[in-house]
Amino acid sequence: MSAAWTVVKVGGHVIDDAAALDRFLHRFAALEGPKLMVHGGGRLASSTARAMGLEPRMVEGRRITDADTLRVVVMSYAGWIGKDIAARLNAMGCRALSLCGADAGLVRTVRRPPHPIDFGYVGDAHPAGVDAARLEQLHAAGLVPVLAPITADASGQLLNTNADTLAATVAAALATKAEVHLYLAFEKEGVLDAHGQVIPALDREAMETLVAAGVVKDGMRPKLDAGFMALQHGVRSVQVGSAEALAEVFQGGCIATRLQDHLSDHARP
Amino acid sequence: MSAAWTVVKVGGHVIDDAAALDRFLHRFAALEGPKLMVHGGGRLASSTARAMGLEPRMVEGRRITDADTLRVVVMSYAGWIGKDIAARLNAMGCRALSLCGADAGLVRTVRRPPHPIDFGYVGDAHPAGVDAARLEQLHAAGLVPVLAPITADASGQLLNTNADTLAATVAAALATKAEVHLYLAFEKEGVLDAHGQVIPALDREAMETLVAAGVVKDGMRPKLDAGFMALQHGVRSVQVGSAEALAEVFQGGCIATRLQDHLSDHARP
Repeated sequence: MSAAWTVVKVGGHVIDDAAALDRFLHRFAALEGPKLMVHGGGRLASSTARAMGLEPRMVEGRRITDADTLRVVVMSYAGWIGKDIAARLNAMGCRALSLCGADAGLVRTVRRPPHPIDFGYVGDAHPAGVDAARLEQLHAAGLVPVLAPITADASGQLLNTNADTLAATVAAALATKAEVHLYLAFEKEGVLDAHGQVIPALDREAMETLVAAGVVKDGMRPKLDAGFMALQHGVRSVQVGSAEALAEVFQGGCIATRLQDHLSDHARP
Repeated sequence: MSAAWTVVKVGGHVIDDAAALDRFLHRFAALEGPKLMVHGGGRLASSTARAMGLEPRMVEGRRITDADTLRVVVMSYAGWIGKDIAARLNAMGCRALSLCGADAGLVRTVRRPPHPIDFGYVGDAHPAGVDAARLEQLHAAGLVPVLAPITADASGQLLNTNADTLAATVAAALATKAEVHLYLAFEKEGVLDAHGQVIPALDREAMETLVAAGVVKDGMRPKLDAGFMALQHGVRSVQVGSAEALAEVFQGGCIATRLQDHLSDHARP
């Protein structure tokens, strides 16, 4: 068993705010041990698409990816955002490689079936499609993978892939080889209850209760589903919280929501 | 001395023509030994900039790169073109990583001084800025670097970099460690004389004669300058020719122009 991996997914406003991104990258650069980042795209893909006259189409919080949109998301996520992050991390002494699932066949996916909704060029990630040995090799070489949420199928077709799912899937694949901790960073300090307070711990049953009450909604549900999937595949800890708290999170000192297989009854929110 | 490296730069119409690109990539994938590709951007950067309302500005065949244009070239070159090439090469069994000079600090540049012309966010590559040991490490790991013509300075600022110069500079840096052969692929079968015939061999003196006669002009001059720079730094062979001829070029069977330090008099065009 090698040293514990930290897999961090960052997205949302942190990507769009240069100062916040810089603070987050300093925290990421300072994390010890094997680590990997998955980044979302922020608003760049939508604003680029609009500037090019393509109107973004979303269904159930997920983008419909036609051929033009695929080009825009690859350009935005794997192009500008990934290379900008890599350049900044390297200036901090962190030997980052801005990659996506298509590079070295790291994450091979299959295009999502067109029924009931044709999402277009979208690939769903599964742990079996991840080359975890290659990720370990890159770490052993002193390199830090920074993954854009783009993958490819066996024919070399690029596919748009949900960033939370990609991070959870990569964490799950690494968990067959090492201890893995997954941190899903986003705008808020954690999953919030009906009073806006951070829920410190959550299991599936508690999540379903919050979904039924309308407290967990929109993009939060697939994020939590991805986190619980990672737990099921042996990822040691999964936390959902703010990018700002990242530095403290694995010392146990921060505010965030920890996902668990089963909560004791008194811990239920 | 390790095995001989092949450094190939491809650009122009090959990037824009899906079938031609596929044929070129098959040839590249089949090349034996350590290898590396530098790709240009074709017309995508200009067409994307136009679609976004940015009018490309060129001076002496080189793009003026303001902040908006930098974003577009990084998105186009390092984003779509690089990742599409990587996905296709991996589908052919070639473990390509789509990188740029900013990744792992592979090629560190300095922003070009603003006088006499302010080219904006442009970095000029020099062999001392290339981490050749890292390129050897990637090769030893079974990986094939595919480099977009984007670099970064020490502060992490991304910079646009001429692709021919980048390829020649990387070849020159590798030449301190190994035998290197550089192939600059473009639209034509080689440097053409006034009758449209391929000139089989060329030295600097012969090039100057062709420049004075107006036979060598536009983008060809900086391409040849880059090639001669590589020769001066110990690159074993430099050839300029078509992407189609790549498979045969290092078996000596193809039509292309070979750059040489000094031609014998009877070989002068």
